[in-house]
Amino acid sequence: MQTGLRRRSQEAHATREKILARAVQIASVRGLAATSIGDLAEAVGMSKSGLFAHFASKEQLEIAVLDEAMRLLRQHVIEPSEQLPAGLPRLHALLDKDVDYATGSVFEGGCFFAAAAHELDGREGAVRDRLVQILDEWDDLLKAQLQEGKAKGEIRQDVVVDTFLFVATGMSLACNWVSQLRRDRARASREARAMIGGLLRSIATPVGTAFLDRPA
Amino acid sequence: MQTGLRRRSQEAHATREKILARAVQIASVRGLAATSIGDLAEAVGMSKSGLFAHFASKEQLEIAVLDEAMRLLRQHVIEPSEQLPAGLPRLHALLDKDVDYATGSVFEGGCFFAAAAHELDGREGAVRDRLVQILDEWDDLLKAQLQEGKAKGEIRQDVVVDTFLFVATGMSLACNWVSQLRRDRARASREARAMIGGLLRSIATPVGTAFLDRPA
Repeated sequence: MQTGLRRRSQEAHATREKILARAVQIASVRGLAATSIGDLAEAVGMSKSGLFAHFASKEQLEIAVLDEAMRLLRQHVIEPSEQLPAGLPRLHALLDKDVDYATGSVFEGGCFFAAAAHELDGREGAVRDRLVQILDEWDDLLKAQLQEGKAKGEIRQDVVVDTFLFVATGMSLACNWVSQLRRDRARASREARAMIGGLLRSIATPVGTAFLDRPA
Repeated sequence: MQTGLRRRSQEAHATREKILARAVQIASVRGLAATSIGDLAEAVGMSKSGLFAHFASKEQLEIAVLDEAMRLLRQHVIEPSEQLPAGLPRLHALLDKDVDYATGSVFEGGCFFAAAAHELDGREGAVRDRLVQILDEWDDLLKAQLQEGKAKGEIRQDVVVDTFLFVATGMSLACNWVSQLRRDRARASREARAMIGGLLRSIATPVGTAFLDRPA
C-alpha cells in the first residue's frame, strides 16, 4: 500500500517534470502567454484535464515554467561556477557560463529570461513578481562575488555594484539580441566574451588582472 | 474639383497619422501582435472598415507602425544629433538622446524597438525584415560616426566596430530593462549615461578625451 502510494507520487513527479521540460522550450520560442494548456497537452501527449491535474491554473503553470528555467540556470551556470573560488574567478565563470546558457542548446528559442522579461515587464501579478524575484537572486549572486572580490583584493574598492550589474545585464541582453535577432550565435558568443573580458579588466586590481591573464 | 481632391487627400493623410500615433503607443505597451485592428479602431473612434481603408492588412499596419517608431527616432534622436559635428561629438549625442527616447515620454511602454525585437525575433516575414532593416540603419549611423571619428583622430584606430555596436546595443537594452522591468526610469537613465561615458572614454584618443572632458 505504502509502496503503491510512493510509486504513484514518483510517477506524478516524473510527469510534472516531463510537462515542464517541454513547456520551458515552447515558452522560449513563443513566449509564456502564447504557451497554451491545449498546445502543451498535445505536445506531451496528455489530455487538457490531465494537465490541469498538475497545474491548477495557467498562472501556476507559468510560475512553474519560470522555476524550471531557474533550475536549468542553476544546473548549467550556477553549480558549475561554484567549483571556482568566490570572488573574481567565480564572477568570471558565472558570466561566461551564462553566455553558453543563452546561446547554446539549453533553450530552443534563445535565453528564456530575456524573452520572459520583455513579455512580462508591462504585466502585473504573481508571474511578473516571481520573475523579478528570480532575477534578484541572480543579481545577488553577482553582487556577492563583487563583495568577496573586493575583500580578497581582486576587485577595486571604488567599483559601484549597481553600475556593474547594469553593464552585465546589457552584456546578457545584447548576447541574446545578436543570437536571436541577427541569428548569429557564434558572433553573439564571441562579442559577449570580449565584453566580459573588458568589463572584468576594468574592475580588477593588479591581483585580479594576474588571474585574468592566466591561461584558461 | 482639384481643390476637393487635394483636401480629401490631406484629410486621409491626417487620419493615417492619427491612427499611427495611437498604434505606436498601444504597441509599445502591448506588443505589435496584440495591437488588434478592432482595439485600434475603437481607440481612434473609427469603424474597423474605415481603418482597413488606410491599411490593407494587419501586416501592412505593423510595418507602418515600425516606420512610425523610426520617424519618432529620427525626430527625437537623429535630427537633433546632426546639429553636432560628425564623429565622436555626434556619436555621443546619438547615444545620449537614445536614452531619453527609451526612458522619456516618447513611448508609453518604454523603448518600442526593444519590445518589438524580442517579440519579432522568432517570427519570419516582412515585418521582421523591416525591423532588421531599421536596426541596420541605426547601426550604420553609429558606424559612420566611428569611421569619421577615426579619420578626425578622435577615436583610436584599433577600435573594433562590431564590438562597439555590441556594447552600445547592450547599453540600450539594459536601459530599457531597468526602466521597464525594475520600473525605475531615473536609475535607467543614470546608469546608461555612466555606461556611455565609460564606453566613449575607452575608445577615445587624447583629442577625443579632451572633447569628453569639456563641460556640457
